[in-house]
Amino acid sequence: MLKLKNVAVDTAPENTAFLSRNCVAYRAEEFTALKKIEVVSDHKTILATLIIADDDGIVRADELGLASPAFRRLGLAEGAEVSIAQAAPRKSLDAVRAKIDGAEMTPSQIEAVIGDIAAFRYSPMEIAAFLISSASFMTTREVLSLTRAMANAGRSLRWDWPIVVDKHCIGGVPGNRTSMIVTPIVAAHGLYMPKTSSRAITSPAGTADTMEVLARVDLTAEEMRAVVEREKACLVWGGHVNLSPADDVLISVERPLRIDTREQMVASILSKKVAAGSTHLLIDIPVGPSAKVRSRSEAIGLRKLFEFVGDEMGLSLDVILTDGSQPVGRGVGPVLEARDVMAVLRNSPRAPGDLRARALLLAGKVLEFDPDLRGGAGRARAQALLDSGAALAAMERIVEAQGAAPQQYALGAITADVQAARSGVVSAMDCHRLGRVARLAGAPMDKGAGIDLFKKIGEPVVKGEPLYRVHSCFQSDFEFAMELVEENAGVVIGEKRTSNENAPCYET
Amino acid sequence: MLKLKNVAVDTAPENTAFLSRNCVAYRAEEFTALKKIEVVSDHKTILATLIIADDDGIVRADELGLASPAFRRLGLAEGAEVSIAQAAPRKSLDAVRAKIDGAEMTPSQIEAVIGDIAAFRYSPMEIAAFLISSASFMTTREVLSLTRAMANAGRSLRWDWPIVVDKHCIGGVPGNRTSMIVTPIVAAHGLYMPKTSSRAITSPAGTADTMEVLARVDLTAEEMRAVVEREKACLVWGGHVNLSPADDVLISVERPLRIDTREQMVASILSKKVAAGSTHLLIDIPVGPSAKVRSRSEAIGLRKLFEFVGDEMGLSLDVILTDGSQPVGRGVGPVLEARDVMAVLRNSPRAPGDLRARALLLAGKVLEFDPDLRGGAGRARAQALLDSGAALAAMERIVEAQGAAPQQYALGAITADVQAARSGVVSAMDCHRLGRVARLAGAPMDKGAGIDLFKKIGEPVVKGEPLYRVHSCFQSDFEFAMELVEENAGVVIGEKRTSNENAPCYET
Repeated sequence: MLKLKNVAVDTAPENTAFLSRNCVAYRAEEFTALKKIEVVSDHKTILATLIIADDDGIVRADELGLASPAFRRLGLAEGAEVSIAQAAPRKSLDAVRAKIDGAEMTPSQIEAVIGDIAAFRYSPMEIAAFLISSASFMTTREVLSLTRAMANAGRSLRWDWPIVVDKHCIGGVPGNRTSMIVTPIVAAHGLYMPKTSSRAITSPAGTADTMEVLARVDLTAEEMRAVVEREKACLVWGGHVNLSPADDVLISVERPLRIDTREQMVASILSKKVAAGSTHLLIDIPVGPSAKVRSRSEAIGLRKLFEFVGDEMGLSLDVILTDGSQPVGRGVGPVLEARDVMAVLRNSPRAPGDLRARALLLAGKVLEFDPDLRGGAGRARAQALLDSGAALAAMERIVEAQGAAPQQYALGAITADVQAARSGVVSAMDCHRLGRVARLAGAPMDKGAGIDLFKKIGEPVVKGEPLYRVHSCFQSDFEFAMELVEENAGVVIGEKRTSNENAPCYET
Repeated sequence: MLKLKNVAVDTAPENTAFLSRNCVAYRAEEFTALKKIEVVSDHKTILATLIIADDDGIVRADELGLASPAFRRLGLAEGAEVSIAQAAPRKSLDAVRAKIDGAEMTPSQIEAVIGDIAAFRYSPMEIAAFLISSASFMTTREVLSLTRAMANAGRSLRWDWPIVVDKHCIGGVPGNRTSMIVTPIVAAHGLYMPKTSSRAITSPAGTADTMEVLARVDLTAEEMRAVVEREKACLVWGGHVNLSPADDVLISVERPLRIDTREQMVASILSKKVAAGSTHLLIDIPVGPSAKVRSRSEAIGLRKLFEFVGDEMGLSLDVILTDGSQPVGRGVGPVLEARDVMAVLRNSPRAPGDLRARALLLAGKVLEFDPDLRGGAGRARAQALLDSGAALAAMERIVEAQGAAPQQYALGAITADVQAARSGVVSAMDCHRLGRVARLAGAPMDKGAGIDLFKKIGEPVVKGEPLYRVHSCFQSDFEFAMELVEENAGVVIGEKRTSNENAPCYET
């Protein structure tokens, strides 16, 4: 038996164990080939990846060290007696290997994989194996099973109301902060919309990052329920609500590998919505040459996958395709986006028209979920609630209910204007590149970092005129961003207007 | 700037860095999303996976910790000044992502991936992504590029002789230790055969594990050269020779994931042979229902892949298909296999006939690479060298040149005989399961552990008669092995002899 020790390092989400090379009870080398061990106590067994240590300060010969996340999960005190063993092969990994060889996974195999992942029994390389094997092909039945397994692996919220709406944008278009306008409109109308959002993964801001400029967002499930019961809606970060723990683990590998398949996207989104207790859901798929979805036919394929899985999961689901050819609004980055959102809610003359139009389109669609609303009346109702200030008032109540923002965030003071290299008309904007510039500038880590757009597609420019302003809070970030800008600023200036300008939002 | 510290933990092959959560120079959370950082000194830059630490004993706020393998690779003293940065995206990973999406990789892309892997710039999850994306499909051109890139990524041995022969078995058949008989026969004939072998990965013994019962095997490249120049041959472990460092890193992920594709197998084997300076190579592919290759058609596909890549790499390559329906010889595990090998070399009446016949077949094929030998005379020449004791004498010289075994290994003293559950004739043996029993019993870690077979396919048995004996050095290993035996002993007893018995070795 070994004595348990907490090694205060953060290897989340992976469980990591430390064993002394001079361990008294085991031959450490015995475990090195497969690296995976079982840590066994009277109380509980966990799997962990093993690291051999040669420093008594980390782990002594009679100790077993667990990195803090694993130590918390085992739930014992330091000094507790534990034993270790070579980890038995996990059956679910056999299914992953069969999948690599081209087999379809059964629902129970997928459930086993997701159960093991949610319980932190997979190492990053094993998670990568599952993700990549699924990335090459996945049947619709597999996507459905994956969605179901992910929804069942964590906490589920249940509400007392027959209609609980939500909207979700698949992302890829900087500045597209419509949720922060749609949610208060819907709440002002009287439908329930308990909105959980993510923080940015590879983008310069997620809805949770931007909302955090205005209010506290790291609410527990209980706090979130109190807000929704009082104000019919919320705009919180989903991280503390633990709706789909497997998804969080999967993302910890998808993110560094930059893997983003439509099947995993559908399962990730719909599992969280089902677990969040949504009954009606609007999915927004922006389509554009530099967005996540590049063509209309690709978007329709994705729409059908959402519809199939949504129907099978018992969701009332509507999908809308929107223009993803350029960023939405003027600001990209939390502070700048919050400014645009509040300008729209306040009906400011300086509010970006494209953000307003898009938010009204989406809010109208969500309001159509209300059986008491006359068909086709959603868009007008949304506009009335926005124009009257009812949506702004709802937003202010939501902010108050969630609590004040943890601090005041200022716009980044280190700036540079990016100028047009020639005269002409803005003919294209690279969403991906502009997002990367904003991210290198410091967003979303520094809420005041990002870019502020002065020109959009279709607008004429004169050589030397500023196209956008880069904001940073730190000189080093600023320099990284400007290096990328100098390589390619992400804005194409052509001879004449393109046809795109007349279709800022389109719908199928 | 931070002060460098060696954190004495072994995370090989991965580079791991430790940063204090209270780091004075950087915001630690800034690096957590992508986990990968660059550690920069005046002298050198390395990539490392980041772990955040909350213990000053591991890393203080003004320090950067590197786990020992990374510390050695950076090559600086403790206290040296280093800075860190978010790791730039590696271009080679874009090629991996394109591969996941179904693209063929170009030679230069594969070279970049292998170069990054050999330089420890990939984390296990990134290596897994490359392996799995390649596991679903790989063109023959890709296999060729992979082989070439892997051969070029490490050290290359060059010899002064026009003919340098080698043989390699793809494995999967327990007890198949023909290399230890073929090599001394070939050396006795006068051809050069500098044989490097691996230790067992998932099997109960590799040639290096078994040879280590007789002699020292962990020779450096220089020591190996001295042995070969004196005795024309050697039987050493390839680990210290560093012939294909990328392969070693790939195996560190293939092994825990238990991934074993024919494309990666061909690239792994041929890259090492080319780097080892071989000019002529015999590949042995055992075929059997529980071997790595299950059918003749699968074996022929694999043979063609070996031939294509071998030809393009300029190797004179011959492939032989052999019977893989049951273990070879009597013993499985290092000590037991060494006993069988020496019995054959000593022409003992108790030498296993199948091991002898197979070794002569393969040695004959290798000898045919000698242009001075009359076509078809190889087998007879091999037998003459074995029968005369010339092969035994060559083996004794090789053992002496390599040096004495590090210790004397005894057969495991904890034993049990596994008995026939019914009377009949042994009709099938499960290579995979018998290998697992031997491995659980302690092989190759405990050289004296393994199984000793009393019956082979075609032999009659009476109910209760012992089929094989399990040997362990430790009670716990013994119990694990016997649990597996009780589930299924891996030997099928049928009514009558099968046709297989008359074809212990076949050739195409």
